[in-house]
Amino acid sequence: MDIGFIGLGGMGVPMATNLIAAGHKLRVYNRTSSKADALVKKGAALMSNAAAVASSGGIVITMLADDAAVESVVLGPDGIANRLAPGGIHISMSTIAPAAARKLAEYHAESGSRYIAAPVFGRPDAAAAKRLWICTSGPPDAKHKVASILEAMGQKIFDFGEEIGAANAHKIAGNFLIAAAMESIGEALAMLEKSGVDRAASIEMLASTLFACPVYQGYGNAIAQMRHTPAGFRLQLGLKDVDLALQTGAELRVPMPIASMLHDRFLASIAGGRAEMDWSAVALAARDDAGLPPPK
Amino acid sequence: MDIGFIGLGGMGVPMATNLIAAGHKLRVYNRTSSKADALVKKGAALMSNAAAVASSGGIVITMLADDAAVESVVLGPDGIANRLAPGGIHISMSTIAPAAARKLAEYHAESGSRYIAAPVFGRPDAAAAKRLWICTSGPPDAKHKVASILEAMGQKIFDFGEEIGAANAHKIAGNFLIAAAMESIGEALAMLEKSGVDRAASIEMLASTLFACPVYQGYGNAIAQMRHTPAGFRLQLGLKDVDLALQTGAELRVPMPIASMLHDRFLASIAGGRAEMDWSAVALAARDDAGLPPPK
Amino acid sequence: MDIGFIGLGGMGVPMATNLIAAGHKLRVYNRTSSKADALVKKGAALMSNAAAVASSGGIVITMLADDAAVESVVLGPDGIANRLAPGGIHISMSTIAPAAARKLAEYHAESGSRYIAAPVFGRPDAAAAKRLWICTSGPPDAKHKVASILEAMGQKIFDFGEEIGAANAHKIAGNFLIAAAMESIGEALAMLEKSGVDRAASIEMLASTLFACPVYQGYGNAIAQMRHTPAGFRLQLGLKDVDLALQTGAELRVPMPIASMLHDRFLASIAGGRAEMDWSAVALAARDDAGLPPPK
Amino acid sequence: MDIGFIGLGGMGVPMATNLIAAGHKLRVYNRTSSKADALVKKGAALMSNAAAVASSGGIVITMLADDAAVESVVLGPDGIANRLAPGGIHISMSTIAPAAARKLAEYHAESGSRYIAAPVFGRPDAAAAKRLWICTSGPPDAKHKVASILEAMGQKIFDFGEEIGAANAHKIAGNFLIAAAMESIGEALAMLEKSGVDRAASIEMLASTLFACPVYQGYGNAIAQMRHTPAGFRLQLGLKDVDLALQTGAELRVPMPIASMLHDRFLASIAGGRAEMDWSAVALAARDDAGLPPPK
Repeated sequence: MDIGFIGLGGMGVPMATNLIAAGHKLRVYNRTSSKADALVKKGAALMSNAAAVASSGGIVITMLADDAAVESVVLGPDGIANRLAPGGIHISMSTIAPAAARKLAEYHAESGSRYIAAPVFGRPDAAAAKRLWICTSGPPDAKHKVASILEAMGQKIFDFGEEIGAANAHKIAGNFLIAAAMESIGEALAMLEKSGVDRAASIEMLASTLFACPVYQGYGNAIAQMRHTPAGFRLQLGLKDVDLALQTGAELRVPMPIASMLHDRFLASIAGGRAEMDWSAVALAARDDAGLPPPK
Repeated sequence: MDIGFIGLGGMGVPMATNLIAAGHKLRVYNRTSSKADALVKKGAALMSNAAAVASSGGIVITMLADDAAVESVVLGPDGIANRLAPGGIHISMSTIAPAAARKLAEYHAESGSRYIAAPVFGRPDAAAAKRLWICTSGPPDAKHKVASILEAMGQKIFDFGEEIGAANAHKIAGNFLIAAAMESIGEALAMLEKSGVDRAASIEMLASTLFACPVYQGYGNAIAQMRHTPAGFRLQLGLKDVDLALQTGAELRVPMPIASMLHDRFLASIAGGRAEMDWSAVALAARDDAGLPPPK
Repeated sequence: MDIGFIGLGGMGVPMATNLIAAGHKLRVYNRTSSKADALVKKGAALMSNAAAVASSGGIVITMLADDAAVESVVLGPDGIANRLAPGGIHISMSTIAPAAARKLAEYHAESGSRYIAAPVFGRPDAAAAKRLWICTSGPPDAKHKVASILEAMGQKIFDFGEEIGAANAHKIAGNFLIAAAMESIGEALAMLEKSGVDRAASIEMLASTLFACPVYQGYGNAIAQMRHTPAGFRLQLGLKDVDLALQTGAELRVPMPIASMLHDRFLASIAGGRAEMDWSAVALAARDDAGLPPPK
Repeated sequence: MDIGFIGLGGMGVPMATNLIAAGHKLRVYNRTSSKADALVKKGAALMSNAAAVASSGGIVITMLADDAAVESVVLGPDGIANRLAPGGIHISMSTIAPAAARKLAEYHAESGSRYIAAPVFGRPDAAAAKRLWICTSGPPDAKHKVASILEAMGQKIFDFGEEIGAANAHKIAGNFLIAAAMESIGEALAMLEKSGVDRAASIEMLASTLFACPVYQGYGNAIAQMRHTPAGFRLQLGLKDVDLALQTGAELRVPMPIASMLHDRFLASIAGGRAEMDWSAVALAARDDAGLPPPK
């Protein structure tokens, strides 16, 4: 199929690469065009503006930083919602607010095109290995039509029904749970460290038993060893995701005290100069508060 | 071997049963003696007081409710510390404070006997299936001598070295992490429920991917389905364990904000009449706060 | 002087009344025009749209609900920023974000008019009694020119300098401190109530000694007696103000854990059906959590 | 009257001095006897042990550091409870737990003497100026009998009835409210400082209007100016008082989230080396978290 792809960051490039490998023809766009070089060598066509990747009845994938970035390419007379009409499909894979997804889906509907939410779990290495977990919501026929495209980018698709905000709400909940786990691990290890228990031994036990799963293994080890660079996912973006949970909770009148507390931790981490570290560095704050010296 | 066993609650009975099955001879004691019936049928000798299970140079296992209960059988002229001397070993498997473990170990040392910390992870069904995870700390030679006894009760032994409080600190950290995960799941699902996302579908996705581990699978499903009776581990005891983390943190000057917040959640749950439910019922508080009606 | 006045809510009406009493001529506007009836009887001219209250070189006061409401009357070719040019002054008395104040002030400057921030402390009865405390920031000459107008509405003016966001930041901090005091009182009285101490006696002692000041006397008594209707300031608006503190803190990378916690309390209060009560009703949440029955 | 006085710290000395000035005869005791020098010069008799200050039917005042210190002089065959019998009165002025007060009162009753709770608000300078606020609870006749003694030490007596724990619960609530106010001020001023608002100007406005009371004036100015030495009340003791609130709340199943959060702040402050500063230094933590450099 002919596919437009907007957003060639750390996630977008490997995802687009997998689409090419699966035999799809790509028209790509990125604000910084040099990010497209490797894809162009593999046959992708680089367009000079976002709208140009979309054509009537076609398919466009966006993998952008935030609500505003997605809105900026979708809305307006020259936005992809209009360019895809009639009948085209926008697969929106960014982590955005459910409320933003609803607004975008409505705009598409009015424009005569369709919007599918398809946020992903996984970091760049998982994207490269085609091991993303993709969560979808939106109109069934549109999801059906793009199923093979999604399968070319991930190891499994999880569908959350027709309510368009559902996949994003789930994605935000998942990221919140990761952040909560990291903070909890940080507190536990600070207490253990001052108790004279080996941080790594403790995580090794937990991550091979009760918590034998990717989050506690991956982030648990990083936190135990205080290894937070290079960033797989920048701490500053972690704050954005925690804030999405808070914002969604606030709209629905759902207090989320751990999310509130994480908001404060991420702010303190950024104020303390850790914005560009991996978001697992949020766990260092528990050590700071315990008076333990920062890792060299 | 001849082994004394004190504390025949939901955990103690299956653990003692496994020891008998492994060929050990047991002298058992419990405050409520009827709890020993099944063990007596399998050949255990029921003693009329705690001290009577201990003999000079022997081995005693305790599996009791809290610091005070362990101290009450260990200390004093007629306590097991004295009765085990010279050379006997006390395997203390309860979840108690590291500070209490240090105090008890010192008392044993002065009495001429030895103390090993060996708290366990696992609920009664895991104890019955010999699938406990056992964490040890204490004198190496004593641990070596009782290794086969521990192996008869669990699937794996994790050693945390000679510092006597280490295994308990680790155990407390583990329970804190479970409680933190339950609260986080509760908040996430309250937000998802009000977003129109199916609670069970969300947990199914997470617990088969990022969080594919016993805690998120077991407690995650219980929380998604609001299934909190019968109690595997009573909520009231959950507060005790969270407070052990707080107490240990306070002694070492380690602030643990999530533990503080859990303390408040457990108190509110008990004030709201949930003391006898499973401790996973702590996750209901997030629904309460969101104005969602309690499960029928 | 000829003064335009936009926003005739519970605060705006008594403030405008005081201006008329001081001899000023008012052109007024409110979305719901019936709110202007009493003022019209006293000689105010009711205009059919917000822009019509403003004239070139004149003075306009706004007392509106939030950032968006103020922006809607200021911005645009027909907004008051343009209508006041050249040389007119906009006295913005609403509680809005410092960032919004900066944006509005810039817009005025570009339009050729001036913007003064002049948020107030005090409830409708204080406004009626001319006992408001007015906090100003902005260009000195403009503040000088309108000093007598402000004096006609309040008991004292506190100036916070030229930085345009300063008065609003201070106002937001003040409201945050009130909310924090109310929550703290709620927690303290829940503990005392369950201790068998008389709520009113406790507040009477504190509010006549250590805390002998309007906030602890007024809100303290309301909370002690659980008297939260009619609303002097609606709980829903209280959330808005707490969120302004959080938003300002987030922009500047200042974690405010009590503000975060208040955000959650206000959400729970609204989810629990207290949105239209006085914001002091936020203190009931501590009783709820303690399992105390809600006041009849 | 003949009065025994135990505990000659920063508070005890000026309180005892006022009793002598009022014409009472004092027998005093302090662990470090040199603290009694000034009182001895004024005519007090220094005893060599605590029990010796008490005589049958007499009156003893204690002003000690914590529950354990009071218990150590009250309990036992040679404790003051026995020495005061029959009919003597113990005026217990320390800040202790309501539960401890109940236990001590019972012990006195069994011994044939009486116990009055009479904790005070005020720092050493207020004690010297006879400006303490004294809160009483306990048996009415005993309170009546010692009224003139209490009046010799404070500016006003507030009675909280017969329930013996009431005065201490109230005192603990008051100290909690002070700590909550200090933390709130710390957060507000950190936000204002980064907003470019003058810390002192902001407090000056608030403490002369909404918050025109001793706590916000005294601590507010100290916090605005970051003046936290010498300590009027050491930060380490502040943690003790916050923990008394938490402990009382926990016993009664009253969650106190701000107290929990203060517990963490005090721990972080101690871990960061501020144990010996005034407890108002707890407000520095908000600046730390905001990345503001510590005061020189």
